[in-house]
Amino acid sequence: MPEETSAPAVTAAVLIIGNEILSGRTQDTNLNWIAARLTAKGIRLAEARVVPDIEDEIIAAVRALSGRYNYVFTTGGIGPTHDDITAEAIAKAFGRPLIVDAQAAARLERHYGAGNVSPARLRMARVAQGAALIDNPVSAAPGFRIENVFVMAGVPAIMRAMVDGIVPALDGGPVVLARSIACQVAESILAEPLGAIQAAHPAVDIGSYPWFRGGRFGVSLVSRGTDAALLDDVAGEISQMVRNLGGEPVDEDST
Amino acid sequence: MPEETSAPAVTAAVLIIGNEILSGRTQDTNLNWIAARLTAKGIRLAEARVVPDIEDEIIAAVRALSGRYNYVFTTGGIGPTHDDITAEAIAKAFGRPLIVDAQAAARLERHYGAGNVSPARLRMARVAQGAALIDNPVSAAPGFRIENVFVMAGVPAIMRAMVDGIVPALDGGPVVLARSIACQVAESILAEPLGAIQAAHPAVDIGSYPWFRGGRFGVSLVSRGTDAALLDDVAGEISQMVRNLGGEPVDEDST
Repeated sequence: MPEETSAPAVTAAVLIIGNEILSGRTQDTNLNWIAARLTAKGIRLAEARVVPDIEDEIIAAVRALSGRYNYVFTTGGIGPTHDDITAEAIAKAFGRPLIVDAQAAARLERHYGAGNVSPARLRMARVAQGAALIDNPVSAAPGFRIENVFVMAGVPAIMRAMVDGIVPALDGGPVVLARSIACQVAESILAEPLGAIQAAHPAVDIGSYPWFRGGRFGVSLVSRGTDAALLDDVAGEISQMVRNLGGEPVDEDST
Repeated sequence: MPEETSAPAVTAAVLIIGNEILSGRTQDTNLNWIAARLTAKGIRLAEARVVPDIEDEIIAAVRALSGRYNYVFTTGGIGPTHDDITAEAIAKAFGRPLIVDAQAAARLERHYGAGNVSPARLRMARVAQGAALIDNPVSAAPGFRIENVFVMAGVPAIMRAMVDGIVPALDGGPVVLARSIACQVAESILAEPLGAIQAAHPAVDIGSYPWFRGGRFGVSLVSRGTDAALLDDVAGEISQMVRNLGGEPVDEDST
């Protein structure tokens, strides 16, 4: 696969924590949303994992991902109930004590009212020692950042608000842009000329994604890279290829 | 976390292969669908990963997952275009040559017509040596099984047909059943009594999943385990707990 040249890529991983995703009860949408935000910021999402609510699994995954990528974003398991074990697992992953953060406790007291921060609620003020809080404008209980790991809620509305508070301040690399041309030529027909276009443009990464929509089969041919002018050229070549094969190229918006 | 007792669990992992998932272009739905099918069969989905179309990443993930779980299901990257590199990566992961399977080639010839199996189409007949084919009733090009890894298409309609052909014949363990009670009591209020119910029933795994639907916050309290009568009892205790807290328990269907 061709890699973009120039400045080094900034990479990230997403770690989704939750039995409900692995049992099939819940359709995850957080990964897709985070991926789009990171892509727009010039941060390349290089891997994602889903693990159950089992401490050793969380620890192993956080360590593996944290050591390998610039940033790690976790979702899930930071609420007040017995099955919310993420904060403790993250602290253990970094060999830090789990502490009640005074500022986090103050935020909870402001949210619930003085004297209303029960032990269960206070669980949501626990962070790995040395962590920085992540704002939660939806329901107060913060996430936290420890080293290169951002520990966030799993509820999409809260997770999204947290990401919107985090990502603008991160260092990104060159933004990977995309141009997508759809057509109804079979992949097996366009494979050879498309491969030739790919081979001629190693700085662009061309993907072929078949789809089935409203009773019609088709394929989206997506060119990705950091050079907008080059992407326009490649998209032009792909459109011409589609026409040469008797198809009708359709410009698509794409990330 | 409590684990079900009795017969040993049969475990699986899903490996999603594709840049389009990690760029945010495509919302994956395959994981959720496979998860529900496995759960119904008594196979516990223990982990999922998403990796890009990079050979070394695919090889490393397949080896890690194959060594750890009973079954691995991969989706994506087995089409005819240059970016379809899964078959080759899987063969390398197991140290096997990549060969053109005669039976797969015959299926393609039947589908496309004699003389119409171009080199690009023949790519879709390549499997790791010693693999068994996975039927594709949608578009002919088969997946394959090598050792404990099932290599499947990424297009949902095709992937689903493949899974429906595979899973009924697999050995499953005890089926994990679920009972879900929804309510609008805040998690931080029910956390303590819910934790007591969990502590009293180590053979049941109780999860608390907050949600926000149609302008209302609530939480689903999901009990999972292999003993249906015990689950009924626990769901009853949870319902009573909700009433004791002034809430209204609502039975939900759940996986």
